[in-house]
Amino acid sequence: MRMASVADATATCALQIVGGTGVSEAIFARVLASFERQGLMRHLGATLLRVEPGLCELALPYSDRVTQQQGGFHGGAIGALADIAGGYAALTVAAEGLEVVSVEYKINFLASFQGGELRALGRVHKGGRRIIVTTAEVSHFAPDGKISPCAVLQQTVMPVPQTY
Amino acid sequence: MRMASVADATATCALQIVGGTGVSEAIFARVLASFERQGLMRHLGATLLRVEPGLCELALPYSDRVTQQQGGFHGGAIGALADIAGGYAALTVAAEGLEVVSVEYKINFLASFQGGELRALGRVHKGGRRIIVTTAEVSHFAPDGKISPCAVLQQTVMPVPQTY
Amino acid sequence: MRMASVADATATCALQIVGGTGVSEAIFARVLASFERQGLMRHLGATLLRVEPGLCELALPYSDRVTQQQGGFHGGAIGALADIAGGYAALTVAAEGLEVVSVEYKINFLASFQGGELRALGRVHKGGRRIIVTTAEVSHFAPDGKISPCAVLQQTVMPVPQTY
Amino acid sequence: MRMASVADATATCALQIVGGTGVSEAIFARVLASFERQGLMRHLGATLLRVEPGLCELALPYSDRVTQQQGGFHGGAIGALADIAGGYAALTVAAEGLEVVSVEYKINFLASFQGGELRALGRVHKGGRRIIVTTAEVSHFAPDGKISPCAVLQQTVMPVPQTY
Repeated sequence: MRMASVADATATCALQIVGGTGVSEAIFARVLASFERQGLMRHLGATLLRVEPGLCELALPYSDRVTQQQGGFHGGAIGALADIAGGYAALTVAAEGLEVVSVEYKINFLASFQGGELRALGRVHKGGRRIIVTTAEVSHFAPDGKISPCAVLQQTVMPVPQTY
Repeated sequence: MRMASVADATATCALQIVGGTGVSEAIFARVLASFERQGLMRHLGATLLRVEPGLCELALPYSDRVTQQQGGFHGGAIGALADIAGGYAALTVAAEGLEVVSVEYKINFLASFQGGELRALGRVHKGGRRIIVTTAEVSHFAPDGKISPCAVLQQTVMPVPQTY
Repeated sequence: MRMASVADATATCALQIVGGTGVSEAIFARVLASFERQGLMRHLGATLLRVEPGLCELALPYSDRVTQQQGGFHGGAIGALADIAGGYAALTVAAEGLEVVSVEYKINFLASFQGGELRALGRVHKGGRRIIVTTAEVSHFAPDGKISPCAVLQQTVMPVPQTY
Repeated sequence: MRMASVADATATCALQIVGGTGVSEAIFARVLASFERQGLMRHLGATLLRVEPGLCELALPYSDRVTQQQGGFHGGAIGALADIAGGYAALTVAAEGLEVVSVEYKINFLASFQGGELRALGRVHKGGRRIIVTTAEVSHFAPDGKISPCAVLQQTVMPVPQTY
């Protein structure tokens, strides 16, 4: 398929991702305001750890709310966490007044874990006016401090006008 | 990449998917036994509607446990529901004594919905000894009876020895 | 992520997919004009079989131009064929004056084949102003007439202004 | 879905990816022997640039064999190149006597380019006995030396017995 317009559509968002403390604080507040409105995340016990231009990190502690039939973290909970991490990373590069929606995502599961907590680190791979491509890595943090890869996601996000 | 062995690996599971009432009842029981062990599904309020050879249908009623920041069904909940529907469809064609794991899945979101319930219909696209490929369609059932497409998933599942 | 705007973005294209012979002929001509400009497809020997509103079918005969190391059809050729079939199915529901681009696609390979020809059947799963979601099935047609599933694709396409 | 067995299935391949010049030369020879058998890659003009344990880099110069309707690199050619780069990266961590097959891949297109050449860098994200997960980044190298991101792929590969 012809890709020329995708080139336009994914012109990098340099202006929007210049750093600075004030910028980061504003970005964190912007993401937190949206995150706290999510019943699912609140319900599963997920927390927002870090937000920077082009980056978002979330944590999900182990509980009986996130298990599958073996007592491990449920793939659905892992997928939700990674989707949100990628989506909010994208939000940090979207223009003011815009929200983002997940057009689609693809996730590979690498291993299963019980106990401890999961952390999903979402990053903007390429920002754009019409399409933002992100990746997210989910790692397991064991009580003994061991960190292991759990899942990896690749996602397509679309900026849209905010309606709330 | 060379695909010959995938041909072998995905030899269809004809013997395992011949129908019959007794077969279907046994299949439903097999899936239900696993489904009821999932803390996440139980917690979100998902229910098992239908299991047939190569097919599994689940329902997820709307509640504040499954919402995103706009009050609509959360993409993470939609993804979890579709993942489970596809995975259990795959389980129905896996040999006795085997469980299945999601190797990966990819989901496109088609529309957002509030209220009513979601139904995910998972189907085995191609069964195999090493790899089972499934698809799932998620639809929204509105209180007024209107049915709308919500999401579509394509998934790779791997049969593994059952350990519980 | 919030999906409300995706709902808007994927409002179905009913007006554009009403059928009729004249419509189909115009659609075939529209797709053929673009298809014939593709050096890769021309070079690999792919042909356009069928175009209908929301549907496109392509054929790729076996040759030493499309093989992998075992002499079977190359996954890359299979992926290209499926991508094009899905993309042109999407073009049939895009407004006049618009082209389409593949934002992304995901493909599962089901089996390997040598000789005969491949056919990719692309279908619009959900049309929209900003995003069109398609699926494509690739089948192998053996010289003896046997038809076998080869690959399945799920794709995200974006309408863009035509520039040629 | 239960992931415990995926944990087993993706036990890292430490023994197979210890470096060393001799090892790298052997790995390059192993990949080249397979690569040169691919009619499609030969036909499109792709070349093998670099092979290291867990890594493979390919180049595809611009020609009328790889174009789409606008004269840019065809998404199908980009996808084929990325698929091969990821697959051969996986081959470098597969045990002796094994080949690899692409179970599936997902690719996002980031921009369109004409002229110059594409380079695909495939990396093993997680190796395993049954499943190897890879990623690949495709970049465009312009005649003036400018390097730009073109596409990103996430792939599932399966080791299988070699049959040639």
